[in-house]
Order: sequence, then C-alpha cells, then structure tokens
Amino acid sequence: MYPVSLQELIDEFNKLPGIGHKSAVRLAFHMMNMSQEKAQRFIDAINKAKSSVHLCRECQNLTDKDLCDICSSQRRDRNVICVMESPKDVTALEKTREYNGLYHVLHGAISPMDNIGPDDIKIKELLPRLTSEVTEVIMATNPTIEGEATATYIARLLKPMGITVTRIAHGIPVDGNIEYADEVTLSRAIEGRREMK
Amino acid sequence: MYPVSLQELIDEFNKLPGIGHKSAVRLAFHMMNMSQEKAQRFIDAINKAKSSVHLCRECQNLTDKDLCDICSSQRRDRNVICVMESPKDVTALEKTREYNGLYHVLHGAISPMDNIGPDDIKIKELLPRLTSEVTEVIMATNPTIEGEATATYIARLLKPMGITVTRIAHGIPVDGNIEYADEVTLSRAIEGRREMK
Repeated sequence: MYPVSLQELIDEFNKLPGIGHKSAVRLAFHMMNMSQEKAQRFIDAINKAKSSVHLCRECQNLTDKDLCDICSSQRRDRNVICVMESPKDVTALEKTREYNGLYHVLHGAISPMDNIGPDDIKIKELLPRLTSEVTEVIMATNPTIEGEATATYIARLLKPMGITVTRIAHGIPVDGNIEYADEVTLSRAIEGRREMK
Repeated sequence: MYPVSLQELIDEFNKLPGIGHKSAVRLAFHMMNMSQEKAQRFIDAINKAKSSVHLCRECQNLTDKDLCDICSSQRRDRNVICVMESPKDVTALEKTREYNGLYHVLHGAISPMDNIGPDDIKIKELLPRLTSEVTEVIMATNPTIEGEATATYIARLLKPMGITVTRIAHGIPVDGNIEYADEVTLSRAIEGRREMK
C-alpha cells in the first residue's frame, strides 16, 4: 500500500532485532519526516562506526584505536585480567568503578549446540597475554550453561601455567527477593555463603 | 566507555521514537556486526525513500510517482473522497478492501493547543478537487478532540458547495467488550444505533 521505496525502508527496519512491524512503520515515517541534514548525520554515524571501530589488539574489546583506552592506561592494574563474553559486559563492570584491572573479551561463549567451539571465540588471543606479570584471571562469563562451560575450559587451560583463576560470585542480586529467586541462584547463594565478621 | 564513534551511533539510535537506551545499544551492536553489504542496503533504503517519496499532487498521500496509484487508477469510484489524517490511516482502510473511492490526506489535524491551524494541514489542497463529479466527502479523521474539530471545520466549509459530508461511525469495536468500553464510545454507540432488519 505504501510506495515501493518506503515499503523497502519499512522492511529494512523490520529486519533489525526487536523491531516489529508497527515499530518499523513508525521508524520509517520518522525518517521520512527527518530533515535531510539529520538523516545524513544518522547515516554518517553508521558509516563512521563501521569503518573506525575494530578489536583492540590486546584485549579484543571494541575500540577506534590500535590499543584501547584501558589497555593503554598507566593507571590500570596489569596483574589481573577479567575475562568477559562481550563488550557490553565490560561497559557494565566499568560503570561500577569497582574494578581496576585489565579485560579480555571473548566475543561469545563455547556452545556445542550452536557449533561454537573454543577456536570460534577469542581464547587463543588470551594466552600470549599471560606473562609473568599476570597473577590472576577472573572468569566473568555469564552464569549460563555456555558461560560456565567456557569458564571451566579456560580454567583448565590456565591451571598448568600456575595462574590463579577465579570465578565471579553468583547469588541473590542486591535488590532481589529470596522468595522469587530461582532454585539454581538460591543454591549458589547458599554454596557461596561467607562468614559475617 | 564505548569508542566515540560507536557511542555516537548509539546516541543516533537513541534519538529515534520508541528506542530507549538499551534498544539503542542493541541496534548499534547489530549494525557493527552487520556485513558491509547489508549495512549499505539499509543506508540505500533510507536515501532512496527520502529522495523518491513525496506527496501525490492530488490526494497528498505518499507516493513515488507524480500521481499515486489510487488517484491514477481507473477502477476507483471518483464520486467519493475519504479525508484522513495520515498515510497510515489510508493503508489501514485499504487493507479492509471495503472502500473503493479516492482519498485526501490532511497530514495532521487542527489543534490550537499545538498551534496547528487549518492552513497548516492540507485542507486548501482538497478544495480544487471538489468538482461536480464528487458527490460525497467522508470525514474519517480520528475520534479525538482534534480530529472532531477538523471534521467539523471541513464539513462547514463544504456545506455551501452542496456536497454531502458524512462522518465515519463510532461505537463498540467488533472485538470489543461493552463492560470495558469508555463512556464516550458507549454513548456514541447508543447514538448511532440502527434498526435491525
């Protein structure tokens, strides 16, 4: 019912994750009503991000430099590397301002069901980073089957190298409710209990 | 925390209607992972829609031709014009396949609160279309204060021209529940009652 090129724009928006048909129509109409200048700014942002952002040669996080800001910072503790599944996880942890070490981004997790093996994520890029300077590797993959499998795989790989490998704590979230916590979380919370001092 | 150009892309997505921060991050990451070819197809769709789609010189609906498919069709009944607020409304009515006349798209409704007067919407473009061929104008603006005001304004304008002006029926939606209908809808449903034959 819409002109062909408008329908094609609706279809393109519809392909994006989380964008249903109604949202796609709304977004396409919004684009149509946008000034040429603003639409160009949107297009430029896509092109610029796609051409300038790549993986940091050390930690594999997204960056627009050769070495990312964290890897090149003199203020970070170079004895600890926190291994995470995605750049979004790094951003989440950075926001807490609680962690001052380095990162390593795997870009996924081992998942035999999806045909993703150890060689399909950035594990081999982690090994040359494990110099004598590194004393601890924190496995901060997600508490899913895939995240656990990945953490276990990397822990076994690093054990012979004499590096301490730790796993982030799982338990009841701080704003969570014990009544509504799932069984696995609750049993992890009991397992990981600590003495109150 | 993200590279500057990625953050700028997230900000651009965040400006779109209905896209919150989390969706903007998800969409920007999706764009980053898209092949260059697919991203280009998305950009081309925006450019093509923006450059080729404009208003039909007759009905003011969106089209990529001089005269839209409906206005140029030989199969449409040229005696009736249905006046609607937006191209989306036309698409909704076309989907019913119940209407075979022409359209006129106002691109808005009179709204003194928002400083939108009769001259700010496509009312003057309707007048030259009211040739002797046209016997009925259906006011299918929304049942809102603005839509009603617009319908009333146009009805008064056309009365001296001897054209029958009708208003679409309001009432309980077909899949609606009387119990939960709002008072205005319910009183409109009573007002508009018809004899059962």
